[in-house]
Order: sequence, then structure tokens, then C-alpha cells
Amino acid sequence: MTNTADTHPAYRARLDARDGLLTGPTANIAPGYVQANLAILPSNLAADFLRFCQRNPKPCPLLAMSEPGSPALPDLGHDIDIRTDVPRYRVWHNGQLVDEPIDVRNIWRDDLVSFLIGCSFSFEEAMLDNGLPVRHIEQGCNVPMYRTSIPTQPAGPFHGQLVVSMRPLKAADAIRAIQVTSRFPSVHGAPVHFGDPAEIGIADINRPDYGDAVEIRQGEVPVFWACGVTPQSVVAAVQPEFCITHAPGHMLITDLLNSRMAVL
Amino acid sequence: MTNTADTHPAYRARLDARDGLLTGPTANIAPGYVQANLAILPSNLAADFLRFCQRNPKPCPLLAMSEPGSPALPDLGHDIDIRTDVPRYRVWHNGQLVDEPIDVRNIWRDDLVSFLIGCSFSFEEAMLDNGLPVRHIEQGCNVPMYRTSIPTQPAGPFHGQLVVSMRPLKAADAIRAIQVTSRFPSVHGAPVHFGDPAEIGIADINRPDYGDAVEIRQGEVPVFWACGVTPQSVVAAVQPEFCITHAPGHMLITDLLNSRMAVL
Repeated sequence: MTNTADTHPAYRARLDARDGLLTGPTANIAPGYVQANLAILPSNLAADFLRFCQRNPKPCPLLAMSEPGSPALPDLGHDIDIRTDVPRYRVWHNGQLVDEPIDVRNIWRDDLVSFLIGCSFSFEEAMLDNGLPVRHIEQGCNVPMYRTSIPTQPAGPFHGQLVVSMRPLKAADAIRAIQVTSRFPSVHGAPVHFGDPAEIGIADINRPDYGDAVEIRQGEVPVFWACGVTPQSVVAAVQPEFCITHAPGHMLITDLLNSRMAVL
Repeated sequence: MTNTADTHPAYRARLDARDGLLTGPTANIAPGYVQANLAILPSNLAADFLRFCQRNPKPCPLLAMSEPGSPALPDLGHDIDIRTDVPRYRVWHNGQLVDEPIDVRNIWRDDLVSFLIGCSFSFEEAMLDNGLPVRHIEQGCNVPMYRTSIPTQPAGPFHGQLVVSMRPLKAADAIRAIQVTSRFPSVHGAPVHFGDPAEIGIADINRPDYGDAVEIRQGEVPVFWACGVTPQSVVAAVQPEFCITHAPGHMLITDLLNSRMAVL
């Protein structure tokens, strides 16, 4: 790749993060480019986590993983340094959040493996391009997310329940949203459920486990997609001695185009 | 085409209809081949009806139309004679059903134009191939159909409300059914609605306007597709001085493969 910062908005955004100029959420930064969830694990957990992603592709669509100790992700973009290019990180010791730095070079280890996982921003862009409403964007808040009763497929120590995100839609719009998001299997793909929340173990649609509640209007049904918070929730449950994730909403901006994630 | 009756099940079925050996419904006859709804109209109505189909492709997916007076449909199959190859017809005078013959050669006219319209048998085969339940097939009855409050786009004298067919499905199966049937735009394509029947003007889901009621089980939602009864209902409302349709369930079996109707 021969991107230069001046001409490439994704690279520009990463350099801004690297230089401490971009430290906030990445929604609406570098529109059109794929953003990714991050989990950095010690190599002794990497093989099991990779297998967990392989067994659970809807919540854990793995875009790329790094070589142990390497901060580069050549498949995702030019000159990526995963230690600096995410606007804000979370550092975890034995399952406890210990820091939210904007740079993790000083705590980097030679045994760390980075996992980059697709994010719903990509399919939400496609929904908006299709004239479909995305309520949490309209309301300027986070997407509501819920722990469900749907089990994930376990791998080694990694196991737990599926987390879903919810977007309310009229039935005809939900049908179109199913078509649109089916084209994006590498960013969660089609919904996993719509309608009655209790059928997937959600007790109160107005009290999400993560994010914010949104209005569900007359004639709308809640539509549920597998969510990239699932791997974070599963990693947190394992309480690894050390791990790094992105801070919620502070994603890695890649050089991949959202439009190129569509399979058809 | 070089089909012979001995080797081609669709041609065999048409010859059986022509010879008076096949006079019953065509469900499960020549599996894998596209079956079509039939409307035969005087040529003075043909241009408007063609425009009606063009404006309403979901209920009226036109597979082929004939030259005026010609019984051939070379785009749909070898040696078709539309006057004999449908197992049973309905003959209408000024909107009144006057006969249900198995052959219409004796009432054929030089000004008649045949319209062949896609039918849900094609996408139901794809649903079954995907392991999805089709309740009316399980129950051995006709699909339930309903007049809705959804208007069609008018053309000349042709206008009226959309008729839909209904298949009950669990939400996860409905999502898969939306994916599967989206691949078949020439046989009604994706559903037009799911969930609350009242939203599309259906007062009682247990009292269909055509066909038979089917069981909707716990955890299932009704899913509604545009239905090929719509053009019949619209034609009937116009009360043309003369027209011929197929008898319900007694379709033209074409040489087209259902699998070839999938766009992707």
C-alpha cells in the first residue's frame, strides 16, 4: 500500500490517535472505512481464543490477528501500530480494569497477540445508505445491548452467553435490514432474532445490559444482531492475568472499505 | 430445446394434461420445475394488464406473455400449447365463472393473450431445501391467503388491494426464510410483512379470504408474502367480457428450473 496521511482518511485518523490528537469515540470518523473491536491476549490464550472466534463467527467475526509480539496488522492497513493507533485502550489485570491509557507501548509484551473483530458500524452505514432508520444514531446515544440466554460454543476457557445489539424497525424495514445486513457476514451479518425479547432471555427491553435504552415506536419490533461485546464479555469472564481491549466506542480504524465487506 | 416426453418430467406432465390424464392439482408434480399462474385476456386489455404487472412485480412477477392468438410460449418450454397443457381451467364471462374445462381449444380466440406469472411453489421448494417448515404442506392443505389494506399500483382498469399468503415461522427461521426467498424475485421474492396482521388490514388471521387456515404455534410469527392470487383478484374485479385462468392449484408446469430462478 502507498497511502499517505494527507490523502487517506483512515491513515490520517490512526496517526491522529498515535499523536494523541484523537482520543475520543470514532463514530463518524473516516466514514466508509471499517472499524474494528480489539482484544489483546497473552499468547498462551491465543489459540483457544482463535478457536472461540472460529466457533462463534456471528458475534466474533475475526478480521485479522497479529503475530505474537508484533504491533503490525498489514492485512488491515498501512503502517498500523496497534500499541498507539487506537484512540483509547482498557488494560485489565485478572479481570479488573486498571487503566484507560491512550498508548500501550510502555506495557507491551513480546507474547501479546492482537485480535481485531468486525463491528456493527459497517452494517449500520449500509442500513443508513438504504434509507433505514438507526434509532440510537437518531437519538445520539449508544446502541442498546443485552445478555441473552443463547449460549456461545465454548473453546478452552472461553464460554458464555451471546450478547446482542438491538435496533427497532417496522416489519417492512426489518425485512430490508435482514437483506442488507445478510450481505455483511464479516460484521455480524443477519439478525439472530426479532420480536419477543423474552424468547432469548431478555427480561426488560428498556433496561439494556450495555449501552443505552432507545425508543421503540408503535408498529416497530425490536430486531437483534449478534454483538462484538460478546468476545469482550467472554474474555472478562475468564479473568486473564493480563489483557488489553479498546475502550468502548474507541475503535481501530482500518484501511478496509465497508463497501468491500459486502459479499454480494 | 430437444426435450422428449420420455426423459423430461415437465414435458411429460404437460402431455399428460393435454391427453386428459392429468386433471388434478400440480403440487408435487415434476418437482424442481417452475409452475406458473395463468391469466388469458382479450388483447384490448393486454397492454394495461402488462403495465399492471410491470408496476406490481412482487404480486405479479411476469414470467412470459404470448403473442396475441398464439398458444405457444417458447420461453417457458418445449411445444407448449396453453389451450391444453394446464390440467384445469376456469372460464369467466363478465366476471362470472361459467365453466371449469380441461381444454379450451373450442373457445380459443385470435385476440387472446396469455400471461404466465410466477408462483410460490418455487420458493417453498427452496425453503424446504433449507430445512424450513412450510406449515400448509405439513398440514396437507392450501396456503392461507388474505386480502390486505395495501393498495396495488393501478394501470388502466386494473386496481385493487394486495393479496398475501402466510407461513408461520419462528423468528430465527423467518430470518433465514427472508434470506432464502430474497433470492427469488421472479417468484414473489422476500416477504412484505411479518407480525401483527392488523397492520396490513387483516382482521382475523384464523379466517383467510382464500385457502385454508393453518396452525400458528407458540413462538411463531405469521410471515406474509405477496401472492399470485392478487392478479386474479384484480382481473375478477374488472369483470372482462371474457377471460380464462387456471383453476386454483392447477398450474402450468414449465421447463424452467426452480434453482435457476435464484438470482444469487
